[in-house]
Amino acid sequence: MKKTIDVCLSPDLVHLYDFDGKVAVVVDVLRATSCMTTALAHGVEGIVPVETLEECEQLGKEGYLTAAERNGEKLEGFNFGNSPFSYMDETLKRKSIAVTTTNGTRAIHLAKVRADEVVIGSFLNLKAVSNYVQNIDKDVIVVCAGWKGRVNLEDSMFAGALVAELQSTYSLELDASKIALSLYEAGKHDKLAFLSDCNHIKRLQKLNIQKDIEFCLEENVYNVVPILEGNRLILG
Amino acid sequence: MKKTIDVCLSPDLVHLYDFDGKVAVVVDVLRATSCMTTALAHGVEGIVPVETLEECEQLGKEGYLTAAERNGEKLEGFNFGNSPFSYMDETLKRKSIAVTTTNGTRAIHLAKVRADEVVIGSFLNLKAVSNYVQNIDKDVIVVCAGWKGRVNLEDSMFAGALVAELQSTYSLELDASKIALSLYEAGKHDKLAFLSDCNHIKRLQKLNIQKDIEFCLEENVYNVVPILEGNRLILG
Repeated sequence: MKKTIDVCLSPDLVHLYDFDGKVAVVVDVLRATSCMTTALAHGVEGIVPVETLEECEQLGKEGYLTAAERNGEKLEGFNFGNSPFSYMDETLKRKSIAVTTTNGTRAIHLAKVRADEVVIGSFLNLKAVSNYVQNIDKDVIVVCAGWKGRVNLEDSMFAGALVAELQSTYSLELDASKIALSLYEAGKHDKLAFLSDCNHIKRLQKLNIQKDIEFCLEENVYNVVPILEGNRLILG
Repeated sequence: MKKTIDVCLSPDLVHLYDFDGKVAVVVDVLRATSCMTTALAHGVEGIVPVETLEECEQLGKEGYLTAAERNGEKLEGFNFGNSPFSYMDETLKRKSIAVTTTNGTRAIHLAKVRADEVVIGSFLNLKAVSNYVQNIDKDVIVVCAGWKGRVNLEDSMFAGALVAELQSTYSLELDASKIALSLYEAGKHDKLAFLSDCNHIKRLQKLNIQKDIEFCLEENVYNVVPILEGNRLILG
């Protein structure tokens, strides 16, 4: 029997899905899961995604490096914000980082308590994630981080990209998979143009991080798959 | 200032939207809101959407005709199911009907308690709804009925069709509007083919109601707008 791929377009819809025995691919393209992928690809040893600033600060006191973003902006008192370029740093090798972001870390936690396994997806490691899930005997649910519960374009498009990778061998169970696939097909030839007036792009452009956006939309830059082991993301 | 149009892709996401002072366009293309539109266009005087079978039965005892559908099928003991063709009946003129369906009536109730005004949309009255909302001074939120909380293709496509009608004069606030618009653009030239493997179409095809499906996907058959007044849908 074919394995299935489903797409959960918002963290506020996870209660509708049966995650039992499945692998959840959590995505927050702009920029949490793109950063996590980048960091681990550049030698960071582990990333602990936490939901609150307090937890992040606490881990900072215990010796972790810390990264905190809210509403697109880096917060004072933490080592990093949410730019993938800040993780392309040789001095971070074998370091551990505690991370909290507006949407991405929440989606990871919602997936963690439900799914059999959690992996981190982004355009940067699309093919690697596709290969990884094809090699394990589990159905897939893509969990889009969205924006404060709302469905967003860039995460839905990533879900569609993964559906496109898997559709020849997987069964598409629900309409959300087809919606995501249609979006990806519509926008894949020029993602930046397709997404140009999406809300989060506009939000980020005000913060002057066009370079981050362009990078996060590139496909298959890294051949790595961050997987959640306990509370830590490590390379799978 | 431009009026705005937002799209709520699932009833389980209504809590994220501010409906204050806005008009909600509730859609359940297959088939609740298509039936309601058809019935009122054919002279039915009023429709009372209720959430439970018990309420529907009670209204039957009080003299209403009754329509009840669950999972696509008409239920025993009620006058109608959920086929638009059953409402093309001269003898229903000036009659009132109590209706309960799997998804549509729930979405109407969720919208009713939040929005300033509720109107019923379907492809059958797309242009009429578009004209109606343009003539009132209220922002628009399309509430897609979906399937048991899940996002579905046909209601999302209708939302996109309304966004397409309004986009030149309205501001598209959230990504969901753009997702819906992209779907409509992708599928509008052959809706039936585009939707052919969507879940509810497959569910309904098993019930042998291809004719219903084809009819519900036709645009601008009726120039009527059902509006909710108190607990009753009447012609606006």
